[in-house]
Amino acid sequence: MKYGVIGTGAIGGYYGAKLARSGQEVHFLLRSDYEYVKENGLQIDSCDGSFHLDNPFVYNTTEAMPPCDVVLVCLKSINNSKLKQLLPPLLHERTLVVLIQNGIGVEEDVQTMFPNVQLCAGLAFICSAKSEPGRVNHQCYGHINLGNYSCKDEALVQQVLDEFNAAGVKAGQIEYQEARWKKAVWNMPFNGMTVALKTQTDLLLKHPATRQLIHEQMMEVITTAQHLGVKNIDASFADLMIQMTDEMTPYSPSMRLDYDFHRHMEIYYLYTRPLQIARAAGHPMPKLEMLEAELRFLDI
Amino acid sequence: MKYGVIGTGAIGGYYGAKLARSGQEVHFLLRSDYEYVKENGLQIDSCDGSFHLDNPFVYNTTEAMPPCDVVLVCLKSINNSKLKQLLPPLLHERTLVVLIQNGIGVEEDVQTMFPNVQLCAGLAFICSAKSEPGRVNHQCYGHINLGNYSCKDEALVQQVLDEFNAAGVKAGQIEYQEARWKKAVWNMPFNGMTVALKTQTDLLLKHPATRQLIHEQMMEVITTAQHLGVKNIDASFADLMIQMTDEMTPYSPSMRLDYDFHRHMEIYYLYTRPLQIARAAGHPMPKLEMLEAELRFLDI
Repeated sequence: MKYGVIGTGAIGGYYGAKLARSGQEVHFLLRSDYEYVKENGLQIDSCDGSFHLDNPFVYNTTEAMPPCDVVLVCLKSINNSKLKQLLPPLLHERTLVVLIQNGIGVEEDVQTMFPNVQLCAGLAFICSAKSEPGRVNHQCYGHINLGNYSCKDEALVQQVLDEFNAAGVKAGQIEYQEARWKKAVWNMPFNGMTVALKTQTDLLLKHPATRQLIHEQMMEVITTAQHLGVKNIDASFADLMIQMTDEMTPYSPSMRLDYDFHRHMEIYYLYTRPLQIARAAGHPMPKLEMLEAELRFLDI
Repeated sequence: MKYGVIGTGAIGGYYGAKLARSGQEVHFLLRSDYEYVKENGLQIDSCDGSFHLDNPFVYNTTEAMPPCDVVLVCLKSINNSKLKQLLPPLLHERTLVVLIQNGIGVEEDVQTMFPNVQLCAGLAFICSAKSEPGRVNHQCYGHINLGNYSCKDEALVQQVLDEFNAAGVKAGQIEYQEARWKKAVWNMPFNGMTVALKTQTDLLLKHPATRQLIHEQMMEVITTAQHLGVKNIDASFADLMIQMTDEMTPYSPSMRLDYDFHRHMEIYYLYTRPLQIARAAGHPMPKLEMLEAELRFLDI
């Protein structure tokens, strides 16, 4: 199969490179790092073993890329309007597009742009960052779950999962709504609160007041998800997420990095959209609404 | 009448000095500024006309003070436990104690300490700050409302109001619960939000996201107050407070100053106590609960 990667950063660079190293044909779209990676290749510094791709297929425009069987979209969601121009050259009739992005509502909006494309959500559980041009620093975790949004070809989804696993990336399938909302249970409290209080995950959980607040925010997401009919999600999932975070090394989520580097934060799909859905369903999430307002105030 | 002032800072220094200048006998308790003021007097830099008290009656212990007819308590509310020791020397059988303090619940707790004392709430609408030892900078406003909590002697309350007015301080009476809750409508959003987002009143109102959030937080207070039976408070009061703040010069409320100078913030009476009352009444204020948690995290 041919893979395309749109957005070769901390996420796309890592997963694309793992697939390429395992023998898959992977075509990378780059922007600012294009010249550097074309010259020097792609370096992955990884807790699971570092490696280097000497001559990856790299492009600075999707018009130059071949149609692909699988496209991994790893852009920041604030750039999704660009997909209207970026995606068409990569699509053939049965292309599967995997949106490895944060938030809720991305699949719905991309489907509206491309009504016939087959879509999966990609839920990446990974701590990684682009440390310099052509270089990804993968600190820990790394598994990915796919949630099938509109792909009728189950065999294709399974093949992608198999090829991820063969590449050394633990991959599984999970029901779409469950996947997105479970990810939101962690993302909504921690991404925003580390920005609002300029802190890290461990300190938020160390102080009893914010530990309780994080739990209450998680329960807002869980309660709303339950009312939306999302399965396999209850209060115990909040406890699990807090326990997991207690065991992590102190961490600055992607939104905190965006804030620190004066980049726009992914407020829309991480907050605005799920808050709209919750409010429309008659189950508003007041503490997360307040967090959204604080983030809008703090955004560049 | 003899007046006593406990806490000769931005508030106590101003009101006490105005009364003294108008001819009242005022006895000031000072702590760190005692020696300076004993030597140099008290300077009030005021938008309404600056003046100097050459030889105020000053003390560094209440044991040295005479019993007073009226005591203005102008301590930060976090120090109210000290009143148990400070207040008794100033009390005679009919002393009126006026708590010129922020928050909700201060009268209830002081009454528990001194079951027979006559209490009024003092609601100061004033922008002032202690700029240096023995010097108060009064920027604007300055009127005071009294809310009668437990004073059976209405004539005494009226006399205090008359003497404030004679001293050039506009003073009126307002129903106790209404006074405290109306003050909370402004205090709870602005004190905390200027700390949480390290900003000032004008910038909070300039950004549409925080302007709406401030309004929602005001409505949490108003809705709770209505359910508690507080009179003359409805949505129009939120609009009025926002309009008033729009017209103010950019302002850092007292909690922001406490935060900036690494002093403990008045979280308990400004947030914890009214939040407990609201929750007990079945009308929690979720956005202000979140703000309280953020403030606890940020407190020294």
